[in-house]
Amino acid sequence: MGLDLPLTRPGLPGSDVTAGQDGGALVRRTVLPGGVRVLTESMPGLRSATVGAWVGVGSRDETDGHHGSTHFLEHLLFKGTARRSAMDIAEAFDAVGGEANAATGKEHTCYYARVLDADVPMAVDVIADMVTSARIDADELETERGVILEELAMNDDDPSDVVHEQFATAVLGAHPLGRPIGGTPATIRAVPRDAVWEHYREHYGPRTLVVTAAGGVDHDALCAQVADALHAGGWDLDPDAGPAARRGDAADAGLPTHGAELVIHRTTEQANVILGAPGLTATDDRRFTLSVLNAVLGGGMSSRLFQEIRERRGLAYSVYCFSSGHADTGVFGLYAGCAPGKVDEVLSLLAEGWERLAQDGITEQELQRSIGQLSGGLVLGLEDTGSRMSRLGKAELVHGELLSQEESLERIRAVRAADVQELAAELAGRPRSVVRVGPFSA
Amino acid sequence: MGLDLPLTRPGLPGSDVTAGQDGGALVRRTVLPGGVRVLTESMPGLRSATVGAWVGVGSRDETDGHHGSTHFLEHLLFKGTARRSAMDIAEAFDAVGGEANAATGKEHTCYYARVLDADVPMAVDVIADMVTSARIDADELETERGVILEELAMNDDDPSDVVHEQFATAVLGAHPLGRPIGGTPATIRAVPRDAVWEHYREHYGPRTLVVTAAGGVDHDALCAQVADALHAGGWDLDPDAGPAARRGDAADAGLPTHGAELVIHRTTEQANVILGAPGLTATDDRRFTLSVLNAVLGGGMSSRLFQEIRERRGLAYSVYCFSSGHADTGVFGLYAGCAPGKVDEVLSLLAEGWERLAQDGITEQELQRSIGQLSGGLVLGLEDTGSRMSRLGKAELVHGELLSQEESLERIRAVRAADVQELAAELAGRPRSVVRVGPFSA
Repeated sequence: MGLDLPLTRPGLPGSDVTAGQDGGALVRRTVLPGGVRVLTESMPGLRSATVGAWVGVGSRDETDGHHGSTHFLEHLLFKGTARRSAMDIAEAFDAVGGEANAATGKEHTCYYARVLDADVPMAVDVIADMVTSARIDADELETERGVILEELAMNDDDPSDVVHEQFATAVLGAHPLGRPIGGTPATIRAVPRDAVWEHYREHYGPRTLVVTAAGGVDHDALCAQVADALHAGGWDLDPDAGPAARRGDAADAGLPTHGAELVIHRTTEQANVILGAPGLTATDDRRFTLSVLNAVLGGGMSSRLFQEIRERRGLAYSVYCFSSGHADTGVFGLYAGCAPGKVDEVLSLLAEGWERLAQDGITEQELQRSIGQLSGGLVLGLEDTGSRMSRLGKAELVHGELLSQEESLERIRAVRAADVQELAAELAGRPRSVVRVGPFSA
Repeated sequence: MGLDLPLTRPGLPGSDVTAGQDGGALVRRTVLPGGVRVLTESMPGLRSATVGAWVGVGSRDETDGHHGSTHFLEHLLFKGTARRSAMDIAEAFDAVGGEANAATGKEHTCYYARVLDADVPMAVDVIADMVTSARIDADELETERGVILEELAMNDDDPSDVVHEQFATAVLGAHPLGRPIGGTPATIRAVPRDAVWEHYREHYGPRTLVVTAAGGVDHDALCAQVADALHAGGWDLDPDAGPAARRGDAADAGLPTHGAELVIHRTTEQANVILGAPGLTATDDRRFTLSVLNAVLGGGMSSRLFQEIRERRGLAYSVYCFSSGHADTGVFGLYAGCAPGKVDEVLSLLAEGWERLAQDGITEQELQRSIGQLSGGLVLGLEDTGSRMSRLGKAELVHGELLSQEESLERIRAVRAADVQELAAELAGRPRSVVRVGPFSA
């Protein structure tokens, strides 16, 4: 049985919801005073845990002129708090062999650490300190501007990064989800401290904070640690406050009605290309159908694109399809890296594979194989604490429900071949975009 | 207590060695008829396992004119056997959601799969079929040549790959370990089927094969599965044969006595640079001292290079040091990605950091922090079945001994600050090489 996560729980701070077990793991959810949500998945026998602090703000929430400020802010949280210098934060995790990092997305930001179970209280304390009490020192900010420009330059030197980022822009156009997460060198050079500070003050607070942990953790102890650490950080935890509402999945207003063709010049050996279209939202019921579609078309060594483009023709080393879903839209794409002179041939093969799926559907054998593939992958994918920590955060912020492994398996098994064909046809009818990165004139 | 792995066990096929436990895990080693070694680490409670087949042959073992043939061969093992087509192999793993892959190194090759425990017999059967009975079909080989050329092109488009590969060449010169593992486009275009076939016949056999597995595996059952699968593959398993000797760690004959400066032109935003020298062999007793040195100098957010070059000066996003050891030599390097105009400044800072370590040593606080970092990292690093599978393979093929976690921790704790300074001074006295990849004229 699944755990329905109420979007707001006014008047019920401190109450618990407990979900079923996955291989002995137990999920619990508590809303603390202030509306702070804590979700844990205790995995028996594990000596370590991953703890994450999620804030429901991403690059799509930035105002014009401040693009990249969410990611800039993520960096600055590591640069010192009222109680800790940047070196103190670094030493705290290094001294215990922990792995601390953060990730900025288009719709949320996550600060996380993987540590031994005995070090969980330290990790909670440091991360909560960063989330509540970052200094955003002006001098540190100027230094970090240089670091971020180097990070952008590094990504810009990776043609597969570039093609994926540009593909989102091609498909989603001027929609805020179409922007690169990190901003551009120009926006990063321009963003003032005030904008970063305002972004921090506006979006970081008890109602938007979700703390998730998986592994060797005790739920009640973690809730107490989180509450103590947020108090220590000076946050006012109003006993009557409830969590912020989940980001709405309003209709995809502002999405372009036509596809785009982009050519990005790079003096590379390989061309990196993506063909695709708008996909499904993160909460679309057909996302399990889409996983089967992805698996059959380009999700493994036995998939159609891998077999046709790599195994039979030797045209690419890397070829696959992918999808990602957001609150109000998503993208679906077919990727290949190939010789520049073969781009037209490869793009035709990608389009053919997609269209054949829409016209002729998939075989019963392909359906069964992909169901087996997704089922095995689901179980294997949840063995580490980081994946489970992340699953809890997305359940709370993105999906609004947490499926047990068994429920996910049931939904995968319920997919029919006809559903896959119908979805392929729908996607094939949407405006298509193509991005080419390589030695081409733009 | 550790497990000493006898290098050859003539007359003792079938006998077992059992080692102590790490967190409930039990290591067992058996030499099967033919000299085939099987090592397992059973991890209680896990529903999955990673199985690997290791062959003690790598790119250093290639003859001139056939560079890249070890990696080419690795690809061709997936292209079909007497009993299975490429599609059969792909489907076998995809149908159960398994992850199958292979890695070619300079001194060994490993084929591995991560699967649910119930699928271990299938994984053993398919991998053993590939290892014993690959067809190396001439037409498939021609198609795969194109795939490998695309893989090389992809790596060539990644400047951090390029700088690491060129650094090995700079430090090790004409020594076979200095060559790129995958060969070059020219050698891949030239290598004939006969060379790949001979490489396969010469190096793949019972005496060089090591099968390792970790997770939800039963040692005796796995031994029986391996023996059956190798019989089915037509291998003659001589009951009197013992394993091949471990690769010797002869003195570093053929190593250059001077460092080299290489400049590789790329039209990138960032420069990628490495400064370094010959390091330690994989079996050098001082490798634990070297890990402390690495941790203090450039192994985490609190390390000297990270603090100086990223945190204080904002010159790089990625900066670290690294080392890798082979049978008769190794490399030690300091890496940074930075703006092209800052390369000289960054290289000076890297050199300064290294030399200050050699002159002034490390503080007691740094020693203790790095010991904590390595200890925590060791435990966290052995939670997944893939890491443990890999540790067993390297214990057998590279180190000739398997240390328990406790023994590794003891060796880390035994490192003294004076040892670190002494090693830093020795490394600083070796011939230095520098590689720059970026928008520079070569």
